[in-house]
Amino acid sequence: MSKIITAEQAAAMLQKADRILLLAHQYPDGDTLGSNFALCSALQALGKTVRVLCGDTIPERYAYLYEGIEQPDFEPDFVCAVDVADEKLLGPAVQTQYGGRIDLCIDHHSTNTGYAANTCVDARCAAAAMIVHRIISLLDVDITPTIATCIFTGITTDTGCFKYSNADATAHRIAADCIDKGAPYEMINRVNFDVKSRARIELERMALDGMRFYHDGRTALMTINRSMVEKSGAKENDMEGLPPIPRQIEGVWVGITLRQKEDGNYKISVRTGTHADASAICALLGGGGHNRAAGCVVEGSWEEAQAAILRAVEQGIPRITTG
Amino acid sequence: MSKIITAEQAAAMLQKADRILLLAHQYPDGDTLGSNFALCSALQALGKTVRVLCGDTIPERYAYLYEGIEQPDFEPDFVCAVDVADEKLLGPAVQTQYGGRIDLCIDHHSTNTGYAANTCVDARCAAAAMIVHRIISLLDVDITPTIATCIFTGITTDTGCFKYSNADATAHRIAADCIDKGAPYEMINRVNFDVKSRARIELERMALDGMRFYHDGRTALMTINRSMVEKSGAKENDMEGLPPIPRQIEGVWVGITLRQKEDGNYKISVRTGTHADASAICALLGGGGHNRAAGCVVEGSWEEAQAAILRAVEQGIPRITTG
Repeated sequence: MSKIITAEQAAAMLQKADRILLLAHQYPDGDTLGSNFALCSALQALGKTVRVLCGDTIPERYAYLYEGIEQPDFEPDFVCAVDVADEKLLGPAVQTQYGGRIDLCIDHHSTNTGYAANTCVDARCAAAAMIVHRIISLLDVDITPTIATCIFTGITTDTGCFKYSNADATAHRIAADCIDKGAPYEMINRVNFDVKSRARIELERMALDGMRFYHDGRTALMTINRSMVEKSGAKENDMEGLPPIPRQIEGVWVGITLRQKEDGNYKISVRTGTHADASAICALLGGGGHNRAAGCVVEGSWEEAQAAILRAVEQGIPRITTG
Repeated sequence: MSKIITAEQAAAMLQKADRILLLAHQYPDGDTLGSNFALCSALQALGKTVRVLCGDTIPERYAYLYEGIEQPDFEPDFVCAVDVADEKLLGPAVQTQYGGRIDLCIDHHSTNTGYAANTCVDARCAAAAMIVHRIISLLDVDITPTIATCIFTGITTDTGCFKYSNADATAHRIAADCIDKGAPYEMINRVNFDVKSRARIELERMALDGMRFYHDGRTALMTINRSMVEKSGAKENDMEGLPPIPRQIEGVWVGITLRQKEDGNYKISVRTGTHADASAICALLGGGGHNRAAGCVVEGSWEEAQAAILRAVEQGIPRITTG
């Protein structure tokens, strides 16, 4: 049973530790990386030995996040996961090594499984980076341009550049503070939201071509299969930002993206508006996430994956078939 | 010669007036409408007779901006244009009626032509709504949910939902204040950035199909002609948000959108990054705008419009042909 602790207690715990290993989730995004590197830089400023471990290779575009933050090699005496809702999300290698011995988890997912000895969760926060911002203030470390860059990245990426429902007044105020402290917000937003390769544009065109509608237009389903990826020449980082597209279509309650993985199975992303809980729909297929954005993996063919997710949508939102 | 005045002087001037006509620019956007209706509501709260006039029909999607704000009919004793850089932009009918007798202009365009008797310009502001926010505070009127909704709309639409370089700390802080005061930010962002009709999706697909590249990929040009609009069934409000697309492509310095007007001529939108001044490029063809986003109209065929804008790009950024 995990002990639920406050940001103050989390800060005190980190203050006492000396050799700290921070853990990011696999398929790393701007929030898990931004939160971890912000905390890493702040704890190093206090003279501690700290580094960040991620089970996957960090995409090239995030290189600006860890520029100038040393990553020493050492044996940790304290392990802290940031923005990791479930131990499984660390990825198999990291889970095998550190599973069951994580001292602290700092997170903003309401679905956090409580796998760490101590859990500091605030699901009201749009990004884990906002909790980290508070902990860094409690540690009495200055917000340097490096830390501001990391925190701003976490907030802007997890709020879809301040577009989603979670982009509340607090998110804007912390973002403003980060800008004041030197976060190069234009570069950060451009890197994360405004640069598309030509391959990505081509992939997007093909994906739009194959958009399908169900439930009287209330559900939109987009598919990205291996042949489209090969034909367009798209790389892994060309895939980001595709899942929100189907839900943006007028009248759509549930936007679904089926993306074929290398093993042929489908990774499913679900996005919802105010009508439905994406996390509940994905839970029906063994997945999870947030209220408006969640995911799961389904084994089998496209037909099987499509049938499974549509069934889950109908089970999760019975009135979708009747309006 | 227009007198340049401060926000304090503008507030004092409005405070003294009784029957105030506010003017928005033609092809109205979220900022000119949000700024005008925010100011209208605030001045009405002071007991004044006020309404907003726009030379074009206000698109349906902006109806939430003026809900509950009365629009009485009266003979004005004071005329104030908001977010209107040039008298021409009022549209021919409004310009004929009020041109040369505009008492005050509140604006954030550095290219403001100084057509009003008094001009209150602050080009550091991302949106005219930010200047209006300041003037309303100076008028000592409470920011109601109605006013907050209008101001938030102006800021979010003129910053591309806080994505552009103008989305600075002040923009975020005023947005946070508006959220605190009751702006339904999720609805506003969804209406302005997150809803696309199926016709729009189809139009976007066709536009992406026809994207052309020049200057070693540094210039991208997208065309929306009349036949594409007809084929997709797209309406006027399906066109918004298209101009930023070409510049989002990796390696692109200048993104150009050629949109065929009803008379066959082309309206050109230019978007630039840090490499170039969009406003200077469009000025070469008789247009104008902001540093990173500007426009102009070119008479003639697609071939002529395309040749003219490419020439202007080469003239405005000589090193675009050499890298």
